[in-house]
Amino acid sequence: MIIIMKKNATEEEIKNIIKEIENKGFQALVTDGIERKVIGIKGDVSTIDSELFYKTGVEEVKRISRPYKLVSREFIPKDTVIDIEGIKIGGSNSPVIIAGPCAVESREQIIETAKAVKEAGAHILRGGAFKPRSNPYSFQGLKEVGLEYLKEAGEITGMPTDSEAVGESYVKLVSEYCSIIHIGARNGKSFELLKKAGKIGKQSRKPILLKRGENATVKEFLGAAEYIANEGCSDIILCLRGIRTYENKENGFQRYTPDLGSISVLKKKTHLPVIFDPSHAAGDREYVRSLCRGAIAMGADGLMVETHLDPDNAKSDAPQQVRPKTLQKIIEDVNLIYKKK
Amino acid sequence: MIIIMKKNATEEEIKNIIKEIENKGFQALVTDGIERKVIGIKGDVSTIDSELFYKTGVEEVKRISRPYKLVSREFIPKDTVIDIEGIKIGGSNSPVIIAGPCAVESREQIIETAKAVKEAGAHILRGGAFKPRSNPYSFQGLKEVGLEYLKEAGEITGMPTDSEAVGESYVKLVSEYCSIIHIGARNGKSFELLKKAGKIGKQSRKPILLKRGENATVKEFLGAAEYIANEGCSDIILCLRGIRTYENKENGFQRYTPDLGSISVLKKKTHLPVIFDPSHAAGDREYVRSLCRGAIAMGADGLMVETHLDPDNAKSDAPQQVRPKTLQKIIEDVNLIYKKK
Amino acid sequence: MIIIMKKNATEEEIKNIIKEIENKGFQALVTDGIERKVIGIKGDVSTIDSELFYKTGVEEVKRISRPYKLVSREFIPKDTVIDIEGIKIGGSNSPVIIAGPCAVESREQIIETAKAVKEAGAHILRGGAFKPRSNPYSFQGLKEVGLEYLKEAGEITGMPTDSEAVGESYVKLVSEYCSIIHIGARNGKSFELLKKAGKIGKQSRKPILLKRGENATVKEFLGAAEYIANEGCSDIILCLRGIRTYENKENGFQRYTPDLGSISVLKKKTHLPVIFDPSHAAGDREYVRSLCRGAIAMGADGLMVETHLDPDNAKSDAPQQVRPKTLQKIIEDVNLIYKKK
Amino acid sequence: MIIIMKKNATEEEIKNIIKEIENKGFQALVTDGIERKVIGIKGDVSTIDSELFYKTGVEEVKRISRPYKLVSREFIPKDTVIDIEGIKIGGSNSPVIIAGPCAVESREQIIETAKAVKEAGAHILRGGAFKPRSNPYSFQGLKEVGLEYLKEAGEITGMPTDSEAVGESYVKLVSEYCSIIHIGARNGKSFELLKKAGKIGKQSRKPILLKRGENATVKEFLGAAEYIANEGCSDIILCLRGIRTYENKENGFQRYTPDLGSISVLKKKTHLPVIFDPSHAAGDREYVRSLCRGAIAMGADGLMVETHLDPDNAKSDAPQQVRPKTLQKIIEDVNLIYKKK
Repeated sequence: MIIIMKKNATEEEIKNIIKEIENKGFQALVTDGIERKVIGIKGDVSTIDSELFYKTGVEEVKRISRPYKLVSREFIPKDTVIDIEGIKIGGSNSPVIIAGPCAVESREQIIETAKAVKEAGAHILRGGAFKPRSNPYSFQGLKEVGLEYLKEAGEITGMPTDSEAVGESYVKLVSEYCSIIHIGARNGKSFELLKKAGKIGKQSRKPILLKRGENATVKEFLGAAEYIANEGCSDIILCLRGIRTYENKENGFQRYTPDLGSISVLKKKTHLPVIFDPSHAAGDREYVRSLCRGAIAMGADGLMVETHLDPDNAKSDAPQQVRPKTLQKIIEDVNLIYKKK
Repeated sequence: MIIIMKKNATEEEIKNIIKEIENKGFQALVTDGIERKVIGIKGDVSTIDSELFYKTGVEEVKRISRPYKLVSREFIPKDTVIDIEGIKIGGSNSPVIIAGPCAVESREQIIETAKAVKEAGAHILRGGAFKPRSNPYSFQGLKEVGLEYLKEAGEITGMPTDSEAVGESYVKLVSEYCSIIHIGARNGKSFELLKKAGKIGKQSRKPILLKRGENATVKEFLGAAEYIANEGCSDIILCLRGIRTYENKENGFQRYTPDLGSISVLKKKTHLPVIFDPSHAAGDREYVRSLCRGAIAMGADGLMVETHLDPDNAKSDAPQQVRPKTLQKIIEDVNLIYKKK
Repeated sequence: MIIIMKKNATEEEIKNIIKEIENKGFQALVTDGIERKVIGIKGDVSTIDSELFYKTGVEEVKRISRPYKLVSREFIPKDTVIDIEGIKIGGSNSPVIIAGPCAVESREQIIETAKAVKEAGAHILRGGAFKPRSNPYSFQGLKEVGLEYLKEAGEITGMPTDSEAVGESYVKLVSEYCSIIHIGARNGKSFELLKKAGKIGKQSRKPILLKRGENATVKEFLGAAEYIANEGCSDIILCLRGIRTYENKENGFQRYTPDLGSISVLKKKTHLPVIFDPSHAAGDREYVRSLCRGAIAMGADGLMVETHLDPDNAKSDAPQQVRPKTLQKIIEDVNLIYKKK
Repeated sequence: MIIIMKKNATEEEIKNIIKEIENKGFQALVTDGIERKVIGIKGDVSTIDSELFYKTGVEEVKRISRPYKLVSREFIPKDTVIDIEGIKIGGSNSPVIIAGPCAVESREQIIETAKAVKEAGAHILRGGAFKPRSNPYSFQGLKEVGLEYLKEAGEITGMPTDSEAVGESYVKLVSEYCSIIHIGARNGKSFELLKKAGKIGKQSRKPILLKRGENATVKEFLGAAEYIANEGCSDIILCLRGIRTYENKENGFQRYTPDLGSISVLKKKTHLPVIFDPSHAAGDREYVRSLCRGAIAMGADGLMVETHLDPDNAKSDAPQQVRPKTLQKIIEDVNLIYKKK
């Protein structure tokens, strides 16, 4: 339920509404709409009568039946800009580029890669320390020491860092080493993990990068973001990465179907920034550049591009990682296209 | 990698192989094939030369590139039978029926439902205490007290119980109250949760009921089971529950596409028992009976049917829960069909 | 638009309504509902005011916004039974079995196969003479001479015959040789072909066997059937044959996802008989028997099973055709299950 | 089978190969590869021994198992440029824009729309005269008179025209009125129609615009193009228009999933030009501009945009048609992006 105040509502009137909400045992969240204040109520209000809130100064009380309200454009009409150690996602003059290897493989590898992607124009360094793999016998990452190396590489190059928290018990750890807590596509509907990420994100003031689940609808994706927002963490970066359809690599196509069409749908429905990961979508470095161009032309705020110094010998996702040289061309491309928006 | 011994291999020869495996830092698992012993090696053997194991008594060394080996038919040709407090899944004379409400709603509700489903012919009682919901503001379950009520209902009726562990930090708790630890479809690729379930399953000697992820391929589903098996827990019940395709309820169809065709594919590829959940597949009680008939005709070892005394007033998944009376008819149907196999 | 008459409506009143409909330039179709006459109006009635038809004897005028009305249960509540030279589909004591090779390959082949499937218990003989192939360079069938051989084989064994009309210009030809005009899945939305099939079906009094398009929703499938019915041909057999989803053979699954769940959905929405084709769904003979069992357990009125004397050397669809011996086992299975309904 | 000649192969040697091919009862097609001639053999060569063609001057004989060879990059490495009355698709300095209403609704409507889209910058006029509709009772087009009006509108504005041939018996008619023969998505696997289009296309020297079937894989789409090419018609424009996946309008998304990722995959595998239709993909005019930007950024050679003077009152596909003013902005957008390639 959201309560839209009149244009000329007084502070007194707003306070009264907040009090009323708190008296019912709920928590109120006040945001600025286009011309007026909007008050959201957190929690399950399905049994509350909306009439209760039609008090002086109130324009409209809207019951929202969708699984998301805090992350909706209706609640916050303005684009959310997230500041990550000075890098702004969501309202910048150029798209934000997150780059780095699929997995941290060694101290040298991540430091050298960090330098190379920085040089190519990237803003934020990514690197997996814990790797969720379909095959339990595949390389599962360097674990905590991978986070240490990533942190060091970020410090050396002056880049914020991003790494995945693969389960509830990993969120705190990642928050201690990294600038961004990353939730992967396979956990895109693991609600307990989302809640934990929201809690730790709030405490640590670290943003959450949330990947769309492989088969999530746009509504479910926003519902997942709402789980995080509902814990009080409002800095959420939505990351598209392809969806599973009848197309696939065995059919001579890409690994997933790139969900570029979702960029404008999300931009309409939510105020959160949206970035695109071409590497997992394509599963093939040959198609990464084209996807990056498309994503930025369609309105994405940034890209996450898996980049490796020697992709053919990468310990995971070898076929989809690009070289720093390609990354540089991609960044040149998308900077030109971005300005044409 | 699996090592198939010769028919007449001696205990000595088998011991030698196990020693060789352990010397390389791996763990050996010995099982009975159709006519000979088979030795599996746990862990990432991708860098090990298979020639090493061609010693006296060895018939063949097979490198398995699929994401599963412990759960494969190749490794264990015989059907696995899981004994849950006397109820046998996988090799019974009649299909095993797991029934009960989507969610435990109150002490009375679960006790009354338990009695009704027992009367209708069910063998195991299900009931959600922690409910993963797409909408963060929907009813999320009674939490631990729900597990207490479920346990009590199981004791009163003499039925083993099943409830979902929604995250890593819930597995132990569920194992303490229930006979089966249930992993839901949304967490079907949450590998840390799967590993935790495997560990706790092994320690507590409780079987794991693993639902197929909404968009998992059969290979990925078996890879998920392998994560559990790889922790030393071999009692795994595979549960199909519909997959996400272009069909859906908004199109005038069912909520998911029932994946009945996967029953025989799984039966071919794995030795684990396979059951079918018609309730989530259909999302509509009208189609539950037909799906149950189909699943059993196609070779499923059992069913999980959401059953509620008053479905229209259920706190979650109201449209898909059947009444005990319908459950009884379903059980009569499938018992007849099962015998015709 | 359909007009439901009162229980005690007189012939006079019914005639008045028909006259009114014809005066508006439309055609009226009168059928029997459960307790009363129902009058359907053919054609685009979107601009007609339904108030016009509220005359004496009329209970209710219903505007139907779905793409189908003539084939809906609402319009004709009773199951349609189609009589094909004495074989009844839709209301028989046992499921109707259509069997035969994917393609007619020679005179001897189809005659020998016809004898074998008849012996195994089949009722109707199928055989493709024109073969729609994804690859333009694959075997495309014997063409008209194939139809001649099929007809002869049908006559020798006393079985009605079924063959595909692959385009508008083939419908008449097929109707001259065969008992059933078959429309394939790839043409499931080729509306001009559907209209032609309806016209020729009506003229020749031959039923149409309509396969579901590979990606048709249930609604679109019924819309396709409506195109046929709207030409005055009401003998339509709906045939399910798997849908395209993320599952596939390359993933270690079946060629299509068997759409068994659609059987009960169709049975609810239409009065037309529904049969299942396991061969195209599975694309693998190993899974055909299981799918047949499931389809009949779930309420299908019959099966279409591709059967070949020597499947490994078939000129098309080799992997999915079963031998007559397997067909016989399938028929024994499903006859037993059918009685348990 | 394709025969790659040596760089320095003589005309004599090439003639010898052609003779050999014709002696076997096949037809030879000679094209220019990057540095050498390539000879393709039309027809089913599966039983021919490739050794036969290893004669003087031959570098390599390649058997192609994919369902396409004439349309493959391997056979013709250079981009095909199609000249439609002076408009070049496939190698232009700016993307080719095909625009016009979903359906021709009246003489005035199509003439006025033609003027408006020409003014907005479009190059080719589209307009449906025969409309394939899921619902048999929906508006089915003005039929032949629609083609007349379209032709007149094209002549008045000096624009080539495009209209759909909905079945075999419509191809000749469309070829007589229009510059391009358009095959729709629903008929994307109607092979008899494809063959007919190829034949008439060749005779009339009119190019074929082939839409991807709603569930066609890239391989099947190219196989469909091959059916046309195999009839001797090499001017084929491939048009993407969204595929059917689990996403849809009812889920709050777009009507289909835009298949933008297929642009670069097609560009790699075929020499044919590729255009994108955002209107059917989105099913919602709000998303059309963004999709156009993405398609051009990703390498499409052109766009087909449904444009209507008064979309809200369009007789078909009302929600997805844009106004000429929006079309103009789209064209400005994509011209800028196109240059950045």
